[in-house]
Amino acid sequence: MGEFEFIDWIRRQTPGASRIAVGPGDDCAVIETTANRPMLVTTDMLLEGSHFVLAEVGAERVGRKAMAVNLSDIAAMGGTPIAAFVSVGLPRGTNTSMIAEDLYRGMREMGDAFSTSIAGGDTNSWTGGLVVNVTLMGEPGPQGPILRKGAQPGDWLMVTGPLGGSIRGKHLDFTPRIREGLLLQQHATIKAMIDISDGLAADAFHLCEESGCGVVLFADRIPIAEAVRQMSGAALEHALSDGEDFELAFAVEPGAGEKLMATQPIQGITLAHVGVFVEEKALFLDEFGMRRRIEPRGYSHPF
Amino acid sequence: MGEFEFIDWIRRQTPGASRIAVGPGDDCAVIETTANRPMLVTTDMLLEGSHFVLAEVGAERVGRKAMAVNLSDIAAMGGTPIAAFVSVGLPRGTNTSMIAEDLYRGMREMGDAFSTSIAGGDTNSWTGGLVVNVTLMGEPGPQGPILRKGAQPGDWLMVTGPLGGSIRGKHLDFTPRIREGLLLQQHATIKAMIDISDGLAADAFHLCEESGCGVVLFADRIPIAEAVRQMSGAALEHALSDGEDFELAFAVEPGAGEKLMATQPIQGITLAHVGVFVEEKALFLDEFGMRRRIEPRGYSHPF
Repeated sequence: MGEFEFIDWIRRQTPGASRIAVGPGDDCAVIETTANRPMLVTTDMLLEGSHFVLAEVGAERVGRKAMAVNLSDIAAMGGTPIAAFVSVGLPRGTNTSMIAEDLYRGMREMGDAFSTSIAGGDTNSWTGGLVVNVTLMGEPGPQGPILRKGAQPGDWLMVTGPLGGSIRGKHLDFTPRIREGLLLQQHATIKAMIDISDGLAADAFHLCEESGCGVVLFADRIPIAEAVRQMSGAALEHALSDGEDFELAFAVEPGAGEKLMATQPIQGITLAHVGVFVEEKALFLDEFGMRRRIEPRGYSHPF
Repeated sequence: MGEFEFIDWIRRQTPGASRIAVGPGDDCAVIETTANRPMLVTTDMLLEGSHFVLAEVGAERVGRKAMAVNLSDIAAMGGTPIAAFVSVGLPRGTNTSMIAEDLYRGMREMGDAFSTSIAGGDTNSWTGGLVVNVTLMGEPGPQGPILRKGAQPGDWLMVTGPLGGSIRGKHLDFTPRIREGLLLQQHATIKAMIDISDGLAADAFHLCEESGCGVVLFADRIPIAEAVRQMSGAALEHALSDGEDFELAFAVEPGAGEKLMATQPIQGITLAHVGVFVEEKALFLDEFGMRRRIEPRGYSHPF
């Protein structure tokens, strides 16, 4: 398909979303704004060989992931997604059209699941590998944009689900926590939030860096994903350092944290209280009653 | 530079734009909206070997162009740019950092010239060629989003400057017509507009397709760029069919067109009245007193 056929194809498939006043086919898309609401914007590029092996995973899963990682960033701000802009570099060859269709099908499936239309884009072919870039726009939830900054010493660190296991394929087929990010705001003031893309240890430390504090992680409270639970000694390491879990990690005041723990599961969401923020600007692990400093990138077991 | 160093570098260099409430470094950027104003959004991907030869043009010009083509799309809607989101795939090698710095310098130069900050992005390296994607957000001008749709039979087709010459390098070093797109709205109601990226003939036809009409181009009124004026017989062909001129082509009512022609040059902008929209849904060229139908893609001279 040429670019114009693609635009036609996307036009035909994209349901008319009420916020998209002008969709694909003009010089720009036109997105309606809401008075006193800023726009959230995030962008992620996936590159063949670097982020995925096309022959192994197929273009549809690449499409799903390209949309999902951006949805996860909107979730991490506590927002609602609105419209996606998709740029693609397709490897030129006999199956270019098939790759394109699988890719867009994957993006649309994931987008549709969160009422997010493809409102514009740029489709190209070239002699290089598959490149997919998604820019996603959204709107903040009831508490406004929830930043990485805002956690204070004494606040609880909580997560929305079990960690570890992205190595077993979860990183391709995860569900972005849009629903969770919005639902939490109905039950507590969320002071800071991030999606776990670099691993709990690293992303908890990102919250600390932006908030100007440190955090202690409780080894025995970190929920371990089924996929790595049997890996005995290595399970905790996976839960702390596996990237691309895409659960949300967030800070709440202790009182709000206690209330959340007493209320859960909240509409099927099981929360865990995995740490506490502290004054000292470092990352600590509390294990077997002993607190020691660990590095934010990757966790090495003491035994 | 790693991604975090990059974010630091961009943070240091990006002037605090008043509309960017949260810039690079969080999960999403936060862009302030204006009540009753929608957002304009456009995205373009440039791929090494397909859109540019890196060794010939250098990364700085690639950066300038990546920003400029998106600015041109905002201009084509009569809008003002606000914030850019930049995703990059850098070829891995000894000069990765140099390419990155040149690229961002080019983007920032072009962005700064139009008060457009880089508000977010995603920087990667891989084994493939250089890939640059820019998504640009803007706001409509006083007449709201000016679409490709809206021209009517009898309306004049006008352009903002001489055409042809992109083959001589203009496609890399053009100035996006943001200023022109805004200024025109102070002097006339612009019924439809497009930036000339595929060539006058093709882009005039895009206006027709969206507006549901046709257009007659006047061969002797098409302003020819200095770079191709000496090419005697081929000059008109270049002016009609060279892509990436990035002048604006727009439709106005005849009365408004006459007023514009009488008023010009408007703050240095020289307009040309190059055609008239007609009922019949086709593209015509009026040359030596004869009107004949031509194809929208490329112009072939009758002699």
